[in-house]
Amino acid sequence: MRIVCLDLEGVLVPEIWIAFADATGIPAFRRTTRDEPDYDKLMRFRIDLLNRQGLKLADLQRVIGGIQPLEGAEDFTQSLREQCQLIILSDTYQEFAQPLMAKLNYPTLFCNRLVTDPAGNITGYRLRQKDGKNLAVQALQSLNLQVFAAGDSFNDLAMIRSADAGCLFRAPPGIREACPDLFCAETYSELLQEITDFLQRANFHES
Amino acid sequence: MRIVCLDLEGVLVPEIWIAFADATGIPAFRRTTRDEPDYDKLMRFRIDLLNRQGLKLADLQRVIGGIQPLEGAEDFTQSLREQCQLIILSDTYQEFAQPLMAKLNYPTLFCNRLVTDPAGNITGYRLRQKDGKNLAVQALQSLNLQVFAAGDSFNDLAMIRSADAGCLFRAPPGIREACPDLFCAETYSELLQEITDFLQRANFHES
Repeated sequence: MRIVCLDLEGVLVPEIWIAFADATGIPAFRRTTRDEPDYDKLMRFRIDLLNRQGLKLADLQRVIGGIQPLEGAEDFTQSLREQCQLIILSDTYQEFAQPLMAKLNYPTLFCNRLVTDPAGNITGYRLRQKDGKNLAVQALQSLNLQVFAAGDSFNDLAMIRSADAGCLFRAPPGIREACPDLFCAETYSELLQEITDFLQRANFHES
Repeated sequence: MRIVCLDLEGVLVPEIWIAFADATGIPAFRRTTRDEPDYDKLMRFRIDLLNRQGLKLADLQRVIGGIQPLEGAEDFTQSLREQCQLIILSDTYQEFAQPLMAKLNYPTLFCNRLVTDPAGNITGYRLRQKDGKNLAVQALQSLNLQVFAAGDSFNDLAMIRSADAGCLFRAPPGIREACPDLFCAETYSELLQEITDFLQRANFHES
């Protein structure tokens, strides 16, 4: 059996914190791991900023509720699910992702969780595990599933390297230059073609 | 994060071989692992019978195309997917399951594969792995996912026992008697209640 593992933000939906920065008019929320490589420091910064601004999980969810998947993402995931299995591997939080999953017809999602207090303030976060995307691909392979993985960020490279096949999708120049051996799809039809080629190779090897 | 693992046949859709036996009027296709405990012998018997009857994969798929999910299964899986993650763990074949997955809105499915010749005759089958349901639950747990599992057959017991929580669903008397410690849900609302209780316990332990 074959399964496709996809990153979420930047691949199927917009970057959530950037959309939130735009919606709240607070540019500091645009800060990403490119500005602050220490993910824990970055999240502490975001949570502290949310609390200082009196912004609760519900405010974030209101904004996220207005975000649409990237153009073509629904048709792309639909045709993917007609051909093979799909699991979304994301470093986002299920409290953020849920409204977007609804718009993508509830694909299976492995991601992280936020911690909130009774008043609905975000007080922390829980990573499912370190190196979660990569370990998920390896766990799926241990079940004799052949995995195709795609993403757009540095935190997707380990999963793409572990997978039986994979590529980048709309990756920024820095990543494309760092990985000249990885094809970078720019459109869903290019990505779907890569996956279809993988499925046909897999079929060939199995029969 | 929490995930629910469900058996397919008998839980969300009818038993496929029994539906095929009824549709073809060939009662021998009703034979199950209860009649022939050796699964390989049973599948060899089915494949041999298909070939002797000149029945191809397309004939099976035509019948399966007319099968509907069990009454209430679509609403049940929908409300499940709004609350947590779902993966179907089945011993069926993806070539059989695909039309039924479409009617259930394409939940993620881990199952087995059939081998066909160029003429479309079924010539064999490939198990994804031995003890596949149980190993899948353990692999998901290794990713720090808390697992609820439910099924109706003896081949579901190991996965239910490995899971963090679980129950039987519409299990025959023999299994219910063999597992007096396992609750057996008879309706989707009972099963959904068991799962909701699990999700609330999980939330409590995590916060």
